[in-house]
Amino acid sequence: MNLEALLATGVGKGQAEKVFKNARLVNVFTGEILETGLAVTGGRVVGVGDYRGAEELDLQGRYVCPGFIDGHVHLESSMVTPAEFARGIVPQGTTTVIADPHEIANVCGVAGIEYMLAATAALPLTVYLMLPSCVPATSLETAGARLTATDLAPFCSHPRVLGLGEVMDINAVLAGQADMMAKLELCRDMVLDGHSPGLSGKELNTYILAGVRSDHECVHPAEAWERLRLGMHLMLRESSASKNLQSLLPVVTPFTARRCLLVTDDRHPAELLHEGHINHLVRLAVQAGLDPVTVIQMATINTAQYFGLKDLGALAPGYAADFLVLDNLEDFRPLRVYRRGLLVAENGRLLVEPAVHRETAVEHTLRLSPLQSDQLRLPALGSRARVIGLVPQQITTRKMEMKAPNHQGCFVADPLADVLKLAVIERHHGTGNVGKGLVSGFGLSGGAIASSVAHDSHNVVVIGANDTDMITAVAEVARLGGGLALARDGKVLGSLALPIAGLMSLKPLEEVEAELSCLRRLAFQMGVRPWYDPFMTLAFLALPVIPELKLTDLGLVDVREGSIVPVAIA
Amino acid sequence: MNLEALLATGVGKGQAEKVFKNARLVNVFTGEILETGLAVTGGRVVGVGDYRGAEELDLQGRYVCPGFIDGHVHLESSMVTPAEFARGIVPQGTTTVIADPHEIANVCGVAGIEYMLAATAALPLTVYLMLPSCVPATSLETAGARLTATDLAPFCSHPRVLGLGEVMDINAVLAGQADMMAKLELCRDMVLDGHSPGLSGKELNTYILAGVRSDHECVHPAEAWERLRLGMHLMLRESSASKNLQSLLPVVTPFTARRCLLVTDDRHPAELLHEGHINHLVRLAVQAGLDPVTVIQMATINTAQYFGLKDLGALAPGYAADFLVLDNLEDFRPLRVYRRGLLVAENGRLLVEPAVHRETAVEHTLRLSPLQSDQLRLPALGSRARVIGLVPQQITTRKMEMKAPNHQGCFVADPLADVLKLAVIERHHGTGNVGKGLVSGFGLSGGAIASSVAHDSHNVVVIGANDTDMITAVAEVARLGGGLALARDGKVLGSLALPIAGLMSLKPLEEVEAELSCLRRLAFQMGVRPWYDPFMTLAFLALPVIPELKLTDLGLVDVREGSIVPVAIA
Repeated sequence: MNLEALLATGVGKGQAEKVFKNARLVNVFTGEILETGLAVTGGRVVGVGDYRGAEELDLQGRYVCPGFIDGHVHLESSMVTPAEFARGIVPQGTTTVIADPHEIANVCGVAGIEYMLAATAALPLTVYLMLPSCVPATSLETAGARLTATDLAPFCSHPRVLGLGEVMDINAVLAGQADMMAKLELCRDMVLDGHSPGLSGKELNTYILAGVRSDHECVHPAEAWERLRLGMHLMLRESSASKNLQSLLPVVTPFTARRCLLVTDDRHPAELLHEGHINHLVRLAVQAGLDPVTVIQMATINTAQYFGLKDLGALAPGYAADFLVLDNLEDFRPLRVYRRGLLVAENGRLLVEPAVHRETAVEHTLRLSPLQSDQLRLPALGSRARVIGLVPQQITTRKMEMKAPNHQGCFVADPLADVLKLAVIERHHGTGNVGKGLVSGFGLSGGAIASSVAHDSHNVVVIGANDTDMITAVAEVARLGGGLALARDGKVLGSLALPIAGLMSLKPLEEVEAELSCLRRLAFQMGVRPWYDPFMTLAFLALPVIPELKLTDLGLVDVREGSIVPVAIA
Repeated sequence: MNLEALLATGVGKGQAEKVFKNARLVNVFTGEILETGLAVTGGRVVGVGDYRGAEELDLQGRYVCPGFIDGHVHLESSMVTPAEFARGIVPQGTTTVIADPHEIANVCGVAGIEYMLAATAALPLTVYLMLPSCVPATSLETAGARLTATDLAPFCSHPRVLGLGEVMDINAVLAGQADMMAKLELCRDMVLDGHSPGLSGKELNTYILAGVRSDHECVHPAEAWERLRLGMHLMLRESSASKNLQSLLPVVTPFTARRCLLVTDDRHPAELLHEGHINHLVRLAVQAGLDPVTVIQMATINTAQYFGLKDLGALAPGYAADFLVLDNLEDFRPLRVYRRGLLVAENGRLLVEPAVHRETAVEHTLRLSPLQSDQLRLPALGSRARVIGLVPQQITTRKMEMKAPNHQGCFVADPLADVLKLAVIERHHGTGNVGKGLVSGFGLSGGAIASSVAHDSHNVVVIGANDTDMITAVAEVARLGGGLALARDGKVLGSLALPIAGLMSLKPLEEVEAELSCLRRLAFQMGVRPWYDPFMTLAFLALPVIPELKLTDLGLVDVREGSIVPVAIA
């Protein structure tokens, strides 16, 4: 509704569709909490003050705060559809997310981005996209797609596309590699998100010079300070895998706060259900002693401002009427959530049924011929092998060189020796590529676990105590069109179908979480050490950008060397 | 220079064209002052830290701060060309201005905007424009042009046009008037500046709902608080006529500071030369006890952020190398000013010769036939008249109803009775319109003063103790093609030519100021009361948007009534 139409409704004379009276309004501009009324027409705030409305609600002094914005999230990590994701997070107070569909784009390319746009078009949640900048993430693996600047260009004019997603390929930036330059140039007038763990000094300066103006990979305050000083916006992240919020809070000062924002990056079903979403981060920061309005700014106006979203993140005339009703500024469990002036959630439950979008292009994407046992053979040259050593609580691994179990000239798994076999099977193009390796520390006493969630290319990864169970588990993942599977003694013990790109289920979030929880228990019963999340650990074993030793469909990767290395040591 | 080209120069490896070593760098992101070096290549900051450069300058611990940005200025008020304006303000540390060419557009329409763009294209000063939103300012006068949304549209794609200038016609906004709606719609995705003196409550809410997100007309803190709470950016103004900065400083808190910016609006030659420009405002605010870095933010990054200028207002990789070298953070008289990495001013003097742009379309714009004495006749009905009563230190006037001097059935000036005659002569279209009125309080004992600077339509305004001298003064203004003139006893005592749109001189700023100073002295010798600036007072007597009684070429305006009223009272 434009201004002329709004004026025709009497807005200028103090009449509105809905008026929320007696609110304690959190003012993110002045830091005040003011007792006032909020007038809404056509989904927008049309006035703050004493208004009359066709509908009037007395909030009896409850707090009203702008809807939360997640500045960076891969919503595939929720393992559910965007509709289910919305059902999970809107009742927690998140009304807008800026999503980077990096995972589905690595599987489905342009079709993955198109799916994300279509599937988020009519949700009770506003979803903006950042274009995945690094598909594939490296040249040491086979992804489902390769996205060049030319592929991304048509998306730039989409009203819900804001810029270029986390620029992970730092080397391509620093080397001035042509396609990366083309992507940066393409998005020059948009927002460029960063991803620069550990980068510092001149390299960091150059990376920022390229136009990158945010980072969500800071772990230590010193990294955060360096980035803030150089003009980056600091995204304080609390994901399922990386909990960095609390250690970064000391960096938030009256000067820096405006350039700090809260992001979840990846949150899995269990954390979404049991902890929450951005409201969890807000709660943690307030518990840590920060001023609540400063924290709310980090979850609202700061994020909106960084992304140039002029009508989000605050409650003032012209802003979207996205807001939460709270009875305190401590637990941040909204009593009610309004989006565009409509009540969409109450007491933790979504009140509207989000539309599920189906798209055959992103379903049943696995091209996988049945795995043959000879494909898993891992010839030894002698007795010694390069073995991936797991590190508790980390997604980094250690490069181990050790004597490994050996049978008829080939390395084999041997639970008693704490060595399992790992394979990554290319699943996008039917190449038949199978990368093989050995892992120490995981703990399976028998059986195998397979998954089509394997960052970032999402080939099928399988770990096992014997080849037969590995074949069975992979066959089950193939049968499901993507998913997780556990097998033992030639039988499937349990599985979860993830038919959308092999990453997301079509089931409700609670069901996915319940099934995952069952599978996790099964995995622990199969011997996985209790300090590992079995599926997350497996998923990151295939990510060749995190040191030291990882496995892709092309083979064992020495991450620091940036090259494929043999398992067998001569 | 793009990133690829920059990398080719060795930037990524720590090499730059110029390196400024041992700087105390004012970091507007973190509020810190850090001892470091600044590397510059291709006019941009390429790194902060320890760099090597083809040219290296040791700043010996001096302060380096981003160049100042004026968020709202009518540069016509400097009465000199844009080139001279640059010569006046760049050495004071202003490297960017956001100018609203409202004055010249009222005279020359589209040609005035085109001239401003052309004349500011190659200066050692970055000039962005806001499109004048209200030409003419009212329907109670004859302006040189009428600018509709259709006229403004072609300018929107210009890279130095940022949005819609101060939306003064509040009534048009509140009434949903079609052409105003079209202008707001035209600039919806750009920046919309406000001008809403005294507006409050529901009307202010509606004005903001229209998309207006700033105001520079606040006088009292209460007005500022209301605007900040409703999402407006607060422009703290210190113009020659309206000195509002100090009274608004209490509004600047750690929460609100980010939404506060410093603007000059109108500064005349004397203030530009003797006080300074934005540096004067910065100095005042620091003297008032504000944290210097907070104040510098209000003159740099806050302004850049409000206007969406992503590479201005800070010194970090990718930002323009616009900066000042200062030896303290108190007087803000820059030792040196760098723009795009080049030394452009030193010790208060510009080092480069700014290019003067000439454009016949904006020169000698007066269409004025010789004024006849009968055109100045002001018939009386009885002895009483409506008289404009001046108010010391204000641009508002009082509506007086009094017995006025009368000769042969017409009102006449009579210095002894403290009544002078005022006339506004239409000068754009040769209509021959002459508005006539009476003024009390100005103080001329004889002679007349005429000016083609008369807000906002800039017709010729003349005040006098007798008709003959009024005709002589106007004839001199006409002869000059626009300007100021003083006449007495049928002779011109002094004048200043303002050939560009009747607003700006072609002479250097110092000369203009010296001549103005002479004319001002002459005016005081002619009896003008010492508490009035003769020319500024005259210029505002024709502005029919400031209460209570003003004069335009169409007649005497009762501003509160919004209508023309007769001088004579029956």
